[in-house]
Amino acid sequence: MNDADDDLLVNTRSEPGEVGLVEARDFVAGTPFTFDNGQTLPGFTLRYETYGRLNAARDNAILICHALSGDHHCAGIHSLNDRKPGWWNNLIGPGKAVDTNTFFVLCANVIGGCQGSTGPSSLDPRTGRPYGITFPAVTIRDMVRTQKLLLDSLGIQSLYAAIGGSMGGMQVLQWGIEYPSFVKRLLAMATTAREGAQAIAFNEVGRQAIIQDPEWNNGYYPKSGGPRVGLAIARMMAHITYLSDASMDRKFGRKAVAAHHKPAPAAAMDVSELSMEGIDPVAPPAAFNVQFEVESYLRYQGQSFINRFDANSYLYITRALDQFDLAAAHGSLENAFAKVEAATLVVGFTSDWLFPPDQNRAIALALLRAGKRVSYAELSTDLGHDSFLLESPQLYDLVRGFLN
Amino acid sequence: MNDADDDLLVNTRSEPGEVGLVEARDFVAGTPFTFDNGQTLPGFTLRYETYGRLNAARDNAILICHALSGDHHCAGIHSLNDRKPGWWNNLIGPGKAVDTNTFFVLCANVIGGCQGSTGPSSLDPRTGRPYGITFPAVTIRDMVRTQKLLLDSLGIQSLYAAIGGSMGGMQVLQWGIEYPSFVKRLLAMATTAREGAQAIAFNEVGRQAIIQDPEWNNGYYPKSGGPRVGLAIARMMAHITYLSDASMDRKFGRKAVAAHHKPAPAAAMDVSELSMEGIDPVAPPAAFNVQFEVESYLRYQGQSFINRFDANSYLYITRALDQFDLAAAHGSLENAFAKVEAATLVVGFTSDWLFPPDQNRAIALALLRAGKRVSYAELSTDLGHDSFLLESPQLYDLVRGFLN
Repeated sequence: MNDADDDLLVNTRSEPGEVGLVEARDFVAGTPFTFDNGQTLPGFTLRYETYGRLNAARDNAILICHALSGDHHCAGIHSLNDRKPGWWNNLIGPGKAVDTNTFFVLCANVIGGCQGSTGPSSLDPRTGRPYGITFPAVTIRDMVRTQKLLLDSLGIQSLYAAIGGSMGGMQVLQWGIEYPSFVKRLLAMATTAREGAQAIAFNEVGRQAIIQDPEWNNGYYPKSGGPRVGLAIARMMAHITYLSDASMDRKFGRKAVAAHHKPAPAAAMDVSELSMEGIDPVAPPAAFNVQFEVESYLRYQGQSFINRFDANSYLYITRALDQFDLAAAHGSLENAFAKVEAATLVVGFTSDWLFPPDQNRAIALALLRAGKRVSYAELSTDLGHDSFLLESPQLYDLVRGFLN
Repeated sequence: MNDADDDLLVNTRSEPGEVGLVEARDFVAGTPFTFDNGQTLPGFTLRYETYGRLNAARDNAILICHALSGDHHCAGIHSLNDRKPGWWNNLIGPGKAVDTNTFFVLCANVIGGCQGSTGPSSLDPRTGRPYGITFPAVTIRDMVRTQKLLLDSLGIQSLYAAIGGSMGGMQVLQWGIEYPSFVKRLLAMATTAREGAQAIAFNEVGRQAIIQDPEWNNGYYPKSGGPRVGLAIARMMAHITYLSDASMDRKFGRKAVAAHHKPAPAAAMDVSELSMEGIDPVAPPAAFNVQFEVESYLRYQGQSFINRFDANSYLYITRALDQFDLAAAHGSLENAFAKVEAATLVVGFTSDWLFPPDQNRAIALALLRAGKRVSYAELSTDLGHDSFLLESPQLYDLVRGFLN
């Protein structure tokens, strides 16, 4: 789907083994789409990227499904000055585990998202104003059904594989259920067929932080920056759940920030590190300054998130996560998988306490009981839920082996 | 310390085995107290309760140390209409593990708290206004040193034992270090000699939720209700860390709230369950309603907390928790315990992921290496950090055995 000039640019300027320069495209669906909750939009847009080439047989397409805060930009760079490549760049590229010399790789920002696909921050053509919380409730199945329309528009008649971690893994499972003859391989990592109470609870605290922020303003888009404080708080908290106790201790431990950030011993605490970018700074004097590196790191995570993510999308997508429940939707998990035709690989990570190994294993076991081709791998790591995103030769070998 | 009338009332009206009616008293220290950070207050008050009688030898006093959100009211009831007894009523009483027929039991609200002891919400006599964040930074050692002044004022010359869980356990350890000949037994549960990065991180998110709430108003006390939203968010999140994945799944799982709370399938989400008591309700229409019981439970936890806790106390006390680091203060944990004379029992709980068993075991091991009398017990439970507060015949037996 890359045009010739793009390909030339990629080949001449990118490092060996890198996808290199990429650009996003928009799929604009002009026909009405009815969400699982019964509401219909007159049309929608999905922003997506592709890497590699669709072969003549059109059977080498791999769909990458992103997680809560991810987007369509999963590999390559957008400009030569781009210091940060796509979020799964370590996995995807020429010669990498998802080899773009062999496969045509696509990734689309989910419906309900805020990176170019239609979501709460998009303009409602019927009113000329953003949808806000008039946007229909979104489900994992809605994400998958809109992705299917994108693939149809590209003339793709089957998926060699669907791959995703966390919420991406939920979409992968839904793909296997919804379009059993279309998708040949399912690779779901660090995911769950339904969240437990603790995961719902963390999402709910994040939602409340947003909704109770006075700037949320009933979910409509005010002239202010919106519920930036609430969104930052939600992100800071969620970020802890993506790591592990051990990895946080290794990375930060109890390390203090540099001395000039610390309050003088006998003084009331000062406020110099208090404000977040884009939030009105609390006027001096006196408050609870950053003392530990982990605090500084989390504040940075919160701050950078509010500059790239829409608070209403956060509400909608966390709700989609919480409501995803394949067993409830089909009577049992085994029933849910009854029509699956794909071969499946499920990967759990030992230190993932958000979607723990047990929940991943349960998916594989249900597929097995349903008589399907399935493998389960559990990788020993102490990096927590985010393990699926991080450098891991073991994971690369698993993915490569599964795809080849 | 109970006067005769009180005792009569207790004996005639209380149930067998219950402490019965109790009332709090105030210890008013009229002499200046200098905090660890060097700031001095002209005086302070500790609110406390006592149960049982100090014997003639004055050697049967047991100090109970409370956790972050606890207070001095750890046993008995305040009126005959009181449906909820003190927070450790299951452990303390006539014939219970901490037997008030034998022991004189005391518990004081910590300095920096908000249940009657001097803290940020108290009036500064020098200004006639609440201290707010001009209140000195508080440490675990400050808590212990003010408790010692209370005991001195009561003519108590030694402690039979100091007992506490979580932050209470930190105070217990500090007692053994600070007043080695004064305290004979240390019983620390579900605690740590220093928090790891994850625990600091959760506290920091809670503090940011408060500080970034526009109603926090630089920590001073406005005419509004203060940062009730931020405090509720902090509490909701912290509450998750006091439980366990397993206990939340058993208690709530994915149970939905009653149907009338749920939005109609095709409608935009409604807002009826959105507001928290004391927070201006978000005007209808449309938002993210309660769907799961765990959400409803957490909202209730947040709501009830803002009616009983001061946001600035929350900031100060979580800071005290984060800064507690016996190894750093003394070169090593073994050095920290060098002067301890008390016999110590440390109890960890297998499902406690806030202050995990390893951190409790490390305390016992350091005491052992320092040549002290110490036992360590690890109780199998799936109730998380709050296990130390809950019904547990195993724990009662341990406590009883250690005290007798």
